[in-house]
Amino acid sequence: MLGFTYICDAMENRICKLFGIEHPIIQAGMVWCSGWRLAAAASKAGGLGLIGAGSMHPDNLRHHIRSCKDALRIPGSESEAGGGNAGSPEVRFLPFGVNVPLMYPQIEEIMNIIVEEKVPIVFTSAGSPKKWTPFLKEHGIKVAHVVSSSVFAVKCEEAGVDAVVAEGFEAGGHNGREETTTFCLIPQVREAITIPLIAAGGVASRASYNAAFALGAEGVQIGTRFALCTESSAHPAFKERCRGLKEGETKLLLKKLAPTRLVDNDFSMAVLEAENRGASAEELTILLGKSRAKMGIFEGNLSEGELEIGQVASMVRKEESAADIIRDLTGVPGDFLMP
Amino acid sequence: MLGFTYICDAMENRICKLFGIEHPIIQAGMVWCSGWRLAAAASKAGGLGLIGAGSMHPDNLRHHIRSCKDALRIPGSESEAGGGNAGSPEVRFLPFGVNVPLMYPQIEEIMNIIVEEKVPIVFTSAGSPKKWTPFLKEHGIKVAHVVSSSVFAVKCEEAGVDAVVAEGFEAGGHNGREETTTFCLIPQVREAITIPLIAAGGVASRASYNAAFALGAEGVQIGTRFALCTESSAHPAFKERCRGLKEGETKLLLKKLAPTRLVDNDFSMAVLEAENRGASAEELTILLGKSRAKMGIFEGNLSEGELEIGQVASMVRKEESAADIIRDLTGVPGDFLMP
Repeated sequence: MLGFTYICDAMENRICKLFGIEHPIIQAGMVWCSGWRLAAAASKAGGLGLIGAGSMHPDNLRHHIRSCKDALRIPGSESEAGGGNAGSPEVRFLPFGVNVPLMYPQIEEIMNIIVEEKVPIVFTSAGSPKKWTPFLKEHGIKVAHVVSSSVFAVKCEEAGVDAVVAEGFEAGGHNGREETTTFCLIPQVREAITIPLIAAGGVASRASYNAAFALGAEGVQIGTRFALCTESSAHPAFKERCRGLKEGETKLLLKKLAPTRLVDNDFSMAVLEAENRGASAEELTILLGKSRAKMGIFEGNLSEGELEIGQVASMVRKEESAADIIRDLTGVPGDFLMP
Repeated sequence: MLGFTYICDAMENRICKLFGIEHPIIQAGMVWCSGWRLAAAASKAGGLGLIGAGSMHPDNLRHHIRSCKDALRIPGSESEAGGGNAGSPEVRFLPFGVNVPLMYPQIEEIMNIIVEEKVPIVFTSAGSPKKWTPFLKEHGIKVAHVVSSSVFAVKCEEAGVDAVVAEGFEAGGHNGREETTTFCLIPQVREAITIPLIAAGGVASRASYNAAFALGAEGVQIGTRFALCTESSAHPAFKERCRGLKEGETKLLLKKLAPTRLVDNDFSMAVLEAENRGASAEELTILLGKSRAKMGIFEGNLSEGELEIGQVASMVRKEESAADIIRDLTGVPGDFLMP
């Protein structure tokens, strides 16, 4: 009998130490799902909650950040805190972060709000980590960047980010062009970088949580399972549809625009049909139109919206809270053992 | 610090017990790679070697089976064996098997040869397990079947197969239509069946070997790393090209025919271009022509052949023997531990 162990307590795990959290579990900052309620619930349960800025106007993002800080305020911290500017008491709160897609049109405004509101952690994605990492680090903000290959992971380390999220082909929503799966990606990124590594794509059960560590990750980012939990702001109809998903009912589509994993529905079948007959990027742009993700995820239009979710949705079947998820993943090992 | 263990010694592991092998590692029966030399080398090293019937004429298969038995003969077993028919001495040999794609045109002839030659183990793929499992079991042959979803895995258990191989999207060559990755597939198949489960697709390093067990597998089937080892009958130029592969340099193509993972080259780019402009199945069939896999893998035509290999090839970099691979996977754990 061989065995191996992985480090997942806050004393030794680099992700826990970096972000000041109890469990190395990041709740992904997803469009139309990850508002302050979800982020606060994940952080309160000992993980790291992320607000998804990708679907928020700047003013709305500020509201979510403030609400999250209120929810995560550490009682009595106003009086405890010493120092600070001009003797003003500093309120302390549990760690949380904001996910910022770097192609966001109002990116400068977003970044200034993050600094003004003293957000402690930022996850960036969909762009070069070189542009904003120095700015965020100058303001004392911890930075993680999402990649889909070890080539980009090395660029992250060179740019000075604190941690890398490596996300596999099975993940929901926008996706890398390499189509490398979590199982193949994590060991290769592990070899390529020395900074802390977070695995994303397909992590939902205790078995996959443990497997991510075996592959070389030091933490996990979980999207799908949190997108479907009670505190997610996704529409109940969207959650219900995704909880009943069968294997093979998501597809990576729109590869001529930005590859996106979508649940099978009338819209996605129209895209598939167009792609099969060789539709151009221009034609697909018109077919996609605007606000499809909002229509599907937030408004619950199951036939015409973009239903972004990961392959592993077919394992998520019940209504549960963010705290339930973290408890399930970090409980005493047992059910993943060999029969 | 949490920890978990997995069972991988022959006394307790169900795959080892089922096949009578030392390590729960199956060397995949791959077209143009898996002749008797590779199968015998994998079995001698304590794994289970498989001859790939998919690229062999029936007479050639018989030759490979006989050569494999010669190579795996247990010395002195002729005189030791008692009983048997009419007192004839029975030669004993180490376990090995044959992989049979069920759409093989001369399937009846192949199956009769397997029975005549007393092959102890058969792995079937690409077809229904119902048709041949009873025939093989009646002849005392152990049967495993390869699937790409838990729906098919359940059908295997119902058909009476002894073990299931669940193969993810990252695997080389022919591939399932669901595109479910190893990371998402294994836990779902584990939930769906009670018979022994072998993980395939992306397993190449000790980290991924351990991760497969964490996901719920009881053994692994390894294609890519064995296809590129010394005893593989693939052309040296093919092996060298695949050992230098970068991440993202394989693609799942020919989805309108049978989805196949191929290395980027002139032929695959012609397929991609045709698919992007909406080429029909008929047009793709003409473009594919005949014997492309032989041309690429066996004859080493790197520009015009089909170069079938898994995503994980980008982690395989050196010349090594089949025994080196098994030693590397089953050695004392260490290098996959967290820093």
